[in-house]
Amino acid sequence: MLENIRIVLVNTTHPGNIGGVARAMKNMGLSDLCLIEPRRFPHADASARAAGADDVLESAVVVDSLEQALADCHLVVGTSARSRTIPWPLVNPRELAAIVSPLPAETRVAIVFGREDRGLTNEELQRCHQHVHIPVNDQFSSLNLAAAVQVITYELRMAKEMDVSTAKPRWGTEWDVDLAEGRELTLLFEHFERTLTEIEFLDPDKPRNLMPRLQRLLLRAVPDKLEVNILRGMLTAMQKRNQR
Amino acid sequence: MLENIRIVLVNTTHPGNIGGVARAMKNMGLSDLCLIEPRRFPHADASARAAGADDVLESAVVVDSLEQALADCHLVVGTSARSRTIPWPLVNPRELAAIVSPLPAETRVAIVFGREDRGLTNEELQRCHQHVHIPVNDQFSSLNLAAAVQVITYELRMAKEMDVSTAKPRWGTEWDVDLAEGRELTLLFEHFERTLTEIEFLDPDKPRNLMPRLQRLLLRAVPDKLEVNILRGMLTAMQKRNQR
Repeated sequence: MLENIRIVLVNTTHPGNIGGVARAMKNMGLSDLCLIEPRRFPHADASARAAGADDVLESAVVVDSLEQALADCHLVVGTSARSRTIPWPLVNPRELAAIVSPLPAETRVAIVFGREDRGLTNEELQRCHQHVHIPVNDQFSSLNLAAAVQVITYELRMAKEMDVSTAKPRWGTEWDVDLAEGRELTLLFEHFERTLTEIEFLDPDKPRNLMPRLQRLLLRAVPDKLEVNILRGMLTAMQKRNQR
Repeated sequence: MLENIRIVLVNTTHPGNIGGVARAMKNMGLSDLCLIEPRRFPHADASARAAGADDVLESAVVVDSLEQALADCHLVVGTSARSRTIPWPLVNPRELAAIVSPLPAETRVAIVFGREDRGLTNEELQRCHQHVHIPVNDQFSSLNLAAAVQVITYELRMAKEMDVSTAKPRWGTEWDVDLAEGRELTLLFEHFERTLTEIEFLDPDKPRNLMPRLQRLLLRAVPDKLEVNILRGMLTAMQKRNQR
């Protein structure tokens, strides 16, 4: 289970932090690290702070977009400070572990961590099914990147160790259809945006929060592949009628 | 409560780790740091890693024995790897928080962390009421000092926070819009059915499970009123285009 959880770091500035993350991951039994455009990597500081988790660093995948990092993931969780323009499902690390722990073993989960100085952008956060927030001192709320990874992966490990049978599955278990992967969801949202523009429901010059709200709604439901196909079929039918 | 918990570091080698500990403490709302014969302190590396928790570093007390560090403490907890010569009461960080949290507010608790390379000596551990062990990957069990402090102080903070807010809604914490009522959902699904029939995506003679699947998807997300309005607006736009 823990091996199927991917830690995704977006635009990390300090290579030492990447090493600290690798060490935290390996301590807790995780190994899948994905780096989106790190400032400097590989780097001696990363190896030094990894303190023996070199294998995690060596097998880390470096990509240049969030899309690539999430393409094969079923559940995407973004780390977030509390307040955002549009509220999104928000859990603490323990609640996150209670959600992730009962998922079928083959479910691929990504947990996305933002830049040291300003976290994730709104657009990146809107790509996530859930947001997770670590409870902190309001007067001093910025956690070190490796410390944040440590806390969240610790909770995931605790859930595994304590075999939390009380936590109820929220979705996806014994489902009749496989959950949609990240790339399928991306295509779905693009299809929505295109179609809604064509039927002039979405004004590209004044998009307001239409697409983020639609994404949030559908991501909350964690759609399966058939549901995605139904929605896309509906959009295609709309486009055809519109072009007549 | 959290202010009465003292973090004690024994013979820390790397000043950077002291800074990391100070940051982790302040993030979680602790401020009482005691250093027993640190190799180098104060030090620029400590201040750099503290990243703004300078007040914790400045008020840190440096002593030269465990006895001094613990003189006024009621409960002493030592961090420990699992196996020791003499068995000792051993808890995980969550159990520790459950022990510490209900104590009277004036109870002074010390949590003692050992050297980076070999932890606490048996003698030091035997000075403790309890031992705490962070569950780790057996193949890679040595946590960074600041990471260990982070995990334990996180659990102490969680115990405090969850005291206050027990039952959280599944989502919709401070949601900006009220959730949709049953009647609004019924109207939404009727609107979907009508529109999908008009654009000939839904065949009333062969409906298959299209509507149930669409309903299940949307119900899972527990839509709010605005989301329902967006979907209905989309459907109305589609109907208008279709009737042209």
